[in-house]
Amino acid sequence: MTLSRYLPILEWGRRYNRSTFTGDAIAAVIVTIMLIPQSLAYALLAGLPPEAGIYASIAPIILYAIFGTSRTLAIGPVAIVSLMTAAAVGDVAKAGTAGYVTAALTLTFLSGAMLLAVGLFRLGFLANFLSHPVVTGFITASGILIAASQLRHILGIEAGGQTLIEVIANLWAQLGEINFITVALGGSTTIFLFWVRDGLEPLLRRLGLGRRMADIGAKTGPVLAIIATTLVVWAFDLGERGVAIVGEIPQSLPPLTLPSFSPDLVSQLAVPALLISIIGFVESISVAQTLAAKKRQRIDPDQELIGLGAANLGAAFTGGFPVSGGFSRSVVNHDAGAETPAAGAFTALGLALAALFLTPLIHYLPKATLAATIIVAVLSLVDLSILKRAWTFSRADFAAVSVTILLTLLAGVEVGVTAGVLTSILVHLYKTSRPHIAVVGRVPGTEHFRNVLRHNVETQPHILSLRVDESLYFPNARYLEDQLAAFVADKPELTDVVLMFPAVNEVDLSALESLEAINTRLREARIRLHLSEVKGPVMDRLKRSDLLAALTGEIFLSQHEAAQKLSERQGPAPAKPPLG
Amino acid sequence: MTLSRYLPILEWGRRYNRSTFTGDAIAAVIVTIMLIPQSLAYALLAGLPPEAGIYASIAPIILYAIFGTSRTLAIGPVAIVSLMTAAAVGDVAKAGTAGYVTAALTLTFLSGAMLLAVGLFRLGFLANFLSHPVVTGFITASGILIAASQLRHILGIEAGGQTLIEVIANLWAQLGEINFITVALGGSTTIFLFWVRDGLEPLLRRLGLGRRMADIGAKTGPVLAIIATTLVVWAFDLGERGVAIVGEIPQSLPPLTLPSFSPDLVSQLAVPALLISIIGFVESISVAQTLAAKKRQRIDPDQELIGLGAANLGAAFTGGFPVSGGFSRSVVNHDAGAETPAAGAFTALGLALAALFLTPLIHYLPKATLAATIIVAVLSLVDLSILKRAWTFSRADFAAVSVTILLTLLAGVEVGVTAGVLTSILVHLYKTSRPHIAVVGRVPGTEHFRNVLRHNVETQPHILSLRVDESLYFPNARYLEDQLAAFVADKPELTDVVLMFPAVNEVDLSALESLEAINTRLREARIRLHLSEVKGPVMDRLKRSDLLAALTGEIFLSQHEAAQKLSERQGPAPAKPPLG
Repeated sequence: MTLSRYLPILEWGRRYNRSTFTGDAIAAVIVTIMLIPQSLAYALLAGLPPEAGIYASIAPIILYAIFGTSRTLAIGPVAIVSLMTAAAVGDVAKAGTAGYVTAALTLTFLSGAMLLAVGLFRLGFLANFLSHPVVTGFITASGILIAASQLRHILGIEAGGQTLIEVIANLWAQLGEINFITVALGGSTTIFLFWVRDGLEPLLRRLGLGRRMADIGAKTGPVLAIIATTLVVWAFDLGERGVAIVGEIPQSLPPLTLPSFSPDLVSQLAVPALLISIIGFVESISVAQTLAAKKRQRIDPDQELIGLGAANLGAAFTGGFPVSGGFSRSVVNHDAGAETPAAGAFTALGLALAALFLTPLIHYLPKATLAATIIVAVLSLVDLSILKRAWTFSRADFAAVSVTILLTLLAGVEVGVTAGVLTSILVHLYKTSRPHIAVVGRVPGTEHFRNVLRHNVETQPHILSLRVDESLYFPNARYLEDQLAAFVADKPELTDVVLMFPAVNEVDLSALESLEAINTRLREARIRLHLSEVKGPVMDRLKRSDLLAALTGEIFLSQHEAAQKLSERQGPAPAKPPLG
Repeated sequence: MTLSRYLPILEWGRRYNRSTFTGDAIAAVIVTIMLIPQSLAYALLAGLPPEAGIYASIAPIILYAIFGTSRTLAIGPVAIVSLMTAAAVGDVAKAGTAGYVTAALTLTFLSGAMLLAVGLFRLGFLANFLSHPVVTGFITASGILIAASQLRHILGIEAGGQTLIEVIANLWAQLGEINFITVALGGSTTIFLFWVRDGLEPLLRRLGLGRRMADIGAKTGPVLAIIATTLVVWAFDLGERGVAIVGEIPQSLPPLTLPSFSPDLVSQLAVPALLISIIGFVESISVAQTLAAKKRQRIDPDQELIGLGAANLGAAFTGGFPVSGGFSRSVVNHDAGAETPAAGAFTALGLALAALFLTPLIHYLPKATLAATIIVAVLSLVDLSILKRAWTFSRADFAAVSVTILLTLLAGVEVGVTAGVLTSILVHLYKTSRPHIAVVGRVPGTEHFRNVLRHNVETQPHILSLRVDESLYFPNARYLEDQLAAFVADKPELTDVVLMFPAVNEVDLSALESLEAINTRLREARIRLHLSEVKGPVMDRLKRSDLLAALTGEIFLSQHEAAQKLSERQGPAPAKPPLG
């Protein structure tokens, strides 16, 4: 029971049969074809040799198949995590050096270890702090950044950069070095791929293919582009005329590699590894949950962390780089009929065969083609409409999205996502620090009490009923004191204040001090303080304090009860001796 | 009108008369006598020459009298801010050097500028993020740390240190160097001052003094100790026998000084200056509000920031160091009859006279006496009972207090107070990320609905009413989805789910996505989703989204209305076509 929770393979493996095998195998063939160019492209994006992309798609997939809970999530290199890898590793080593590869392995190891630890300690809920608008904004900005950074491969120049300004400035500075053959090759591939994305599927359907097959056929379009451009480069020997090609790739299974554990490197890469882990996890889990919902399956977020952690640890020791669950390939896997994670294992087998036998064939593959596949893929992630949706719905969400997008573009991925999370948290704290406090009255003919400013309600002059629309805790404790003083001022006829607590979900020690101060001050003004609709958990806590003993008024189960009892009584509260 | 808001002196100055003058003048004499030893002692604590303490008590007091809103707050060097100054400046310069003095001036300038800016932009509410338990814990731990750090002066050794462990280790290492004459002098002064604190006031009252005079007389006890020990050191020439004395102090008014604005220094001191500003402000404002409440006066927190900012800018240009409102001297000022900030101006005059004429007299004042006054003063701030109170009331507050106390003692003041604030915020976020969700039913004979587990209530099998006890926002959006799925599972008779929103004070974009997902999933299970008791501000926002159009059920003003209408209808919701 417990074992199969940590090893979901025991669960689905027991029921494995021929029909599941067929579905898995077909899906695996299609995903393998799709994953080969993606792996090479994302390795390029991460600043690593192309074979690293293939290696990152073998061991990690097998490990995820054993530990993961999603039946159809396809693990491997993904665009945004690859960009984040380039940013993090680029800060500590120069691209193309052995140090760069080692640093990438260390980053992968750290990320895997963190994911595993968070999963084992069941802290997966932490990912919720990455709000939906922040994730959408971050993916959008990263997509723009990735597309811009890949332009150099289309233009055949060497301009790098981690922010949009750097990228554009570097492209501009080297505009004179453009290789026009590369531009022709890369430009036509990009146009072809855009057409494939939007036009191939309708064409295939007109040619008589079913909806599913047409869809899958369209997704394998990049393979056609790769074959065609490789042949062109080989036939006209364009590699000699300045077109950057993939070149020699070792023909081997993934090597056994060791990350470096030098304390310097580990401390420099710890924060980027954390950010990569969070982003990779959030991307994976949303894909996994979307696909699981379609088949009414369950995803266990903490076990997903364990699966992803194992996958990344696997990548760290087999020449890979950070991996995650990819959106498009998971959808293809699902639509192609994958039923269990075994489909992933078969994909790994396909990639291992590719690593052994296909690598000589892609010697002449131009980097511009890979860049074109990246650009077309990431531009579909860009969703600037989130800005409009957030603006309409709430200024707070708009602030979080726009900070995320702007800072990701202008200061890089790490700053961007961190600033997004911090903005959402700070905006929330700011809002709760000035809660909405409404004077309420009875909706005629009911026992229900609503805001006097919004509803036509009945009130009594000697009773002031205030509904506090927020948990009472340190950021707003003193604010309540100030507001109450303002509400009570200049009302000589007032004898009773009722604080209505249906929306108070918590009272902390700072708020308790404020409530005690309010009680004392109202008593000195000969006004009784009552509470109504105090929720169970809050009441339990107040019982452990001195407030209830000192309270000049009562605790009412409902506001209706409070209004009834208090309207029967009249006259000011009896003066009591001061507390001290 | 506007001018007197920024210059409260215009308000109280207009009504100044002979009676106010008498009260202010008497209070000023008493506070001056008390402030002289305190100023010297806190300069020692901050690692500065003794005259800096006197300078810090002249210009700042006058500036606060012009800009501050408290009638009786006494500004000057205070224990905790002095300790924080020593910690901050000690990190960038060596005590006793000119660089140290300049760095202290820069720190003071930065703190003053920050306070002024926060006050002008009316951001004083930010101080509320320092919760009551964190402040209490921080003051307690700082008191212990200060007392421990002053032991070296009582023992006559040179051991420094910024954490409790460093302080104790350094004391231990130099235990062989103890100067026994210093120990005798410092020890007896400490014992005398403890007796003064608890025993002098009853004695004076037995001798026939009134309660107020006896209390004030007891508070001037340290002056007696200073006179007596200075005479002893002078008479027996103990300075030659290894007793550290105050020594030469320039006989002059405060000098005109310039802080350094070197970018390096400014960037190193910016964070400490921010922490000092926050702590100084929180200490001041709580003293000011306590005293104002006694006289039914009002304190404007933002104007207080301006007053404190001006005081610190004054200190930065007149050879001082960071100042704040002191608790004990403000109470003495208030009790001695101060009526307006003019009392402060007269105190400044008294200290200016002391700077001109009294400094030669304290040449032989032993540092051990000053250390003894500090130790006795700060130990009265130590309040470990906050740990017990917090533990009883809430584990979250206990976590914040204990983290603050432990880290202040073990890692220093800056780490301690920062960790305290972060812990309170993180604990709050954690709690709101797993909100309490209650199944509710009707309290018989009322229109009131409460938790089925706590109250004896009526429910109907085909209606599930859930009360969500938290604002719905990104940290708990997915949690709500999970919980709702669990509540709905295995209830085939269910046709209607009512989410009761009286405690939902906010719905953000992430939560909106979750509500839309819940609506879609329930519709697929042929269950209608209703909302009830949605508050005005939340409803306004939902109206700007697509949720209301897609909602399979209704919005009810009250839960009672929902239960009544839904109990009349029966049968599952009509199946609708899927959304997409």
